[in-house]
Amino acid sequence: MKDKPLILVTNDDGITAPGIRTLINVMKTLGDVVVVAPDSPQSGMGHAITLDSTLHIEKIHVKNGDYHAYSCSGTPADCVKIAVNEILDRRPDLVVSGINHGSNSSINVIYSGTMSAAIEAGIEGIPAIGFSLLDYSWNADFEPSKPFIKTIVKNVLKEGLTDGIVLNVNIPNLQQKKIKGIKVCRQARANWKEKFDKRKTPQGKDYYWLTGTFVNYDKGKDTDEWALEKGYISVVPVQFDLTAHHALQQLNTWNLNE
Amino acid sequence: MKDKPLILVTNDDGITAPGIRTLINVMKTLGDVVVVAPDSPQSGMGHAITLDSTLHIEKIHVKNGDYHAYSCSGTPADCVKIAVNEILDRRPDLVVSGINHGSNSSINVIYSGTMSAAIEAGIEGIPAIGFSLLDYSWNADFEPSKPFIKTIVKNVLKEGLTDGIVLNVNIPNLQQKKIKGIKVCRQARANWKEKFDKRKTPQGKDYYWLTGTFVNYDKGKDTDEWALEKGYISVVPVQFDLTAHHALQQLNTWNLNE
Repeated sequence: MKDKPLILVTNDDGITAPGIRTLINVMKTLGDVVVVAPDSPQSGMGHAITLDSTLHIEKIHVKNGDYHAYSCSGTPADCVKIAVNEILDRRPDLVVSGINHGSNSSINVIYSGTMSAAIEAGIEGIPAIGFSLLDYSWNADFEPSKPFIKTIVKNVLKEGLTDGIVLNVNIPNLQQKKIKGIKVCRQARANWKEKFDKRKTPQGKDYYWLTGTFVNYDKGKDTDEWALEKGYISVVPVQFDLTAHHALQQLNTWNLNE
Repeated sequence: MKDKPLILVTNDDGITAPGIRTLINVMKTLGDVVVVAPDSPQSGMGHAITLDSTLHIEKIHVKNGDYHAYSCSGTPADCVKIAVNEILDRRPDLVVSGINHGSNSSINVIYSGTMSAAIEAGIEGIPAIGFSLLDYSWNADFEPSKPFIKTIVKNVLKEGLTDGIVLNVNIPNLQQKKIKGIKVCRQARANWKEKFDKRKTPQGKDYYWLTGTFVNYDKGKDTDEWALEKGYISVVPVQFDLTAHHALQQLNTWNLNE
């Protein structure tokens, strides 16, 4: 008989990232943990999957032996697919991804490998949460986020998630006592103003680095950006039915079949 | 004075794919065309962007000189970003992506490089359409789709698109006279049942190929899958606000701050 929930842990910064260590440690207090994470960083991979090359998995030695871990040569979405189909001997009760080193709030959800793993789990019908800390540093302090992550995960394990949604959780980079609480939010309307840093190779050919500035156009007080700026942890329910249902009616007035 | 619309053409199968040739030829009848497309196939890349390596662009020689073309070392989303910010001398009136060799209907939109280019344009506030033909073959017959693509593009150039949406167009693999028309649809609820084909390297180590079967759970007659099966071209308005607005109220009943 199953007594503890089975929790699959993954991320997009790779299996050696400090963020996933923290997430593993919190999850061990809540269930049986299996880790399947990329063998190298996959940030900015969006919802990529590996169709045209082979996938490799390696069992990782875990010191205390209190969970199982595997590294995978693929993307975060690949990790979830291969975990559920090849590695796990039963269906996980929850998939958690992160803790990402850096924000996945507002439009960043679109580019996020962390969230692609959660969304992949959601597509498979498994409750899933992506966690991100607003600090890109490898030495980010993940300690303050621990009790909040525990609260959110306990709620999801107890209540479940509506079919077709996963949670996008972003955590402000603050000391624990400065974090004001957890807020359910909508995704802010924002984007990146790109700037390409144009350089020359030693051979004199142009090349580019993508850089940019994040611009929040959204003045709403119900958005993830607003919550994070005010010191709250943001929780956005994310869907993978991308249909803009509100636009169907207008499109049906077009002359597409004359 | 600008008399013709400026149309940016991209794709995810790479600049040499037959599908993009067809799209370029149709777009030349409707506006001034600039092509910025990946220098190699990018299928299954989702909404990946290149953050950790350099981007290179090459001007491509075009025989008749009736449009400009560039290949880019990045993903489809990179192509749109670098085109808008570095290559084009004015903002495009429309971005079209495709014609993809293979379906991007229903859940495939999530994994689609073709659609990531259209969505990236949408994020930048530019009307955008992704086109896909339901034939994976390199020798697919794109001729029948031409008049329908022209109709859809003319409507978008005339009517514009609501802020925050782009169009996902899928075309059945049929002779022109067998195509019944164009239908505005919602994304069908469907997914892939993965199957990993497990093999051994010559050295005896396991590795995997991702394969799978597409499963449509959706019985609705207003979905893209239904339309395509019945011989229609499907047009789904796609949004990049991923907030599941219908789930906000329920999440707000949780005890997240006790």
